[in-house]
Amino acid sequence: MDFEITILGATAATPIYGRGQTAQLINHNQHYFLIDCGEGTQHQFLRYKKKMNRIEAIFISHLHGDHYFGLMGVLNTLHLQKRSEPLRLFGPAGLSEIIIVHFRHSNTVLGYPLVFKETSTQTPALIWENEHLTVETIPLRHSLPCAGFLLREKKGRRKLIQERLLPDFTPSEYIDLKHQRDIIRNGKAIPYDYFSYEVKPRSYAFCSDTAYHEAMLEQINGVDCLYHEATFIDADAFQASETKHSTALQAATIAQQAKVNQLLLGHFSIRYKDPIELLLEAKKVFANSFIAEEGHTFSIQEEGPRL
Amino acid sequence: MDFEITILGATAATPIYGRGQTAQLINHNQHYFLIDCGEGTQHQFLRYKKKMNRIEAIFISHLHGDHYFGLMGVLNTLHLQKRSEPLRLFGPAGLSEIIIVHFRHSNTVLGYPLVFKETSTQTPALIWENEHLTVETIPLRHSLPCAGFLLREKKGRRKLIQERLLPDFTPSEYIDLKHQRDIIRNGKAIPYDYFSYEVKPRSYAFCSDTAYHEAMLEQINGVDCLYHEATFIDADAFQASETKHSTALQAATIAQQAKVNQLLLGHFSIRYKDPIELLLEAKKVFANSFIAEEGHTFSIQEEGPRL
Repeated sequence: MDFEITILGATAATPIYGRGQTAQLINHNQHYFLIDCGEGTQHQFLRYKKKMNRIEAIFISHLHGDHYFGLMGVLNTLHLQKRSEPLRLFGPAGLSEIIIVHFRHSNTVLGYPLVFKETSTQTPALIWENEHLTVETIPLRHSLPCAGFLLREKKGRRKLIQERLLPDFTPSEYIDLKHQRDIIRNGKAIPYDYFSYEVKPRSYAFCSDTAYHEAMLEQINGVDCLYHEATFIDADAFQASETKHSTALQAATIAQQAKVNQLLLGHFSIRYKDPIELLLEAKKVFANSFIAEEGHTFSIQEEGPRL
Repeated sequence: MDFEITILGATAATPIYGRGQTAQLINHNQHYFLIDCGEGTQHQFLRYKKKMNRIEAIFISHLHGDHYFGLMGVLNTLHLQKRSEPLRLFGPAGLSEIIIVHFRHSNTVLGYPLVFKETSTQTPALIWENEHLTVETIPLRHSLPCAGFLLREKKGRRKLIQERLLPDFTPSEYIDLKHQRDIIRNGKAIPYDYFSYEVKPRSYAFCSDTAYHEAMLEQINGVDCLYHEATFIDADAFQASETKHSTALQAATIAQQAKVNQLLLGHFSIRYKDPIELLLEAKKVFANSFIAEEGHTFSIQEEGPRL
């Protein structure tokens, strides 16, 4: 089951030619989600050969332009492409008004249902789920109401242990296993659990934009992958504090305290010519740090059985 | 005196990776104007190394997304870049509401005055002028209220005729000429007009988006350069009519009937793999046709004196 994060853009507010502003495409088990949508996101889909129409839901963290100015273009192009599937949209108060005003003035009646749900930016809330995944908001601390998103697999999914499958299984025994039933041999039950293991649920937390904010620690504790903004280096911590952004050091401190597995850093200010500066600062505190490089796909691997 | 049109984008509604939607930068005598502003226009400024902050006014033809979804990004980035000069914005009813809603939800108070004036899309109106140039709206026929723009130099500007300048001019005679005064030699006046000629006023008409619309002919008669949309080829004239767009043949017919000097074609539907098809169709009717190629600068030359 795939769990992939593709970075469609990771620059901060000031545009850089050829680089996208914040947008991430999530593929979880062939279900696709878009997190944030900076200007030009629809072009980034074309650039990285991703299918925009497969998105089921869009999650917008907050209403600074570098996180949503591409949304109208995405919604409009899906309409021109004759999408008919519903699209869910989650974002802070105000987003629906913005969309309605745009479409009212262009006489646009979308050809697909756009289902908007306002997100809470004050308390964590479950906003979306399917059979295998939930999405919660993560309240962040920024100059506007802002919520990150926590994507977490549900508990209890089991997979067969290849090493324990018997060479002489009958077809009906295979069917029993497929339905998670015990197998009866010679009048004795061999429990399904012997042939299978519970997959460790995986999780991804998206935290942008935010000042250093320990309140999120409990919620993101132990996530497999954390994207945390790192607009500044520690030498510019004052500026970070003034603008309610984080330094790379602060992002790494959050990662370390939350005991996450992997940290992705992005949203760097253009004042830093080479992002390696921010990466090195983070790695001093949290070694498993990476730059959220545009175009890269980060994959969260499933753990195998412990035999 | 420069009169240049730089094509920042010329694709139609469906986005193409690496190509911009409608946006044109006008340089008239070092005064800069932006006409239309498709998504990603601020990136096109970076790509073609043009200074966005030099723009004095932005003209938006209509409220289809491919003509203005980049506007919020431009306004926002100018704010982040600490612009303080006023910026004039002209567009149809509704544009100001869209901008206000965006900025209200992001708590943005622009650091520069943004002066909005609603354009009439029904009757031609003078909306802007400086010492040498006027801008009028051109009512177009589209599925939304839509106005093109006619940029026309004012009459009466005179320039010195190099060939008639005398080698023995005194400094005070030079000053007289500079102030457009006659020169007195041996008690006799030599008229300033002898040393100078009236420059033929140049003009540029931007007409997108529009169905075939002869009502514009009188207004754009004899312009030096006409940009006219050509979304379709003539074989798809029905579709053009349905969507209130033009074919290349229709654009060329307008150019021919209006006796313009040069025709620029753009806004091609992505169904046509090679725009040469549209160009050839137009050239059959109007030979001096060109593709409004992104990144190209078209310069309208001044005519010299007729001696």
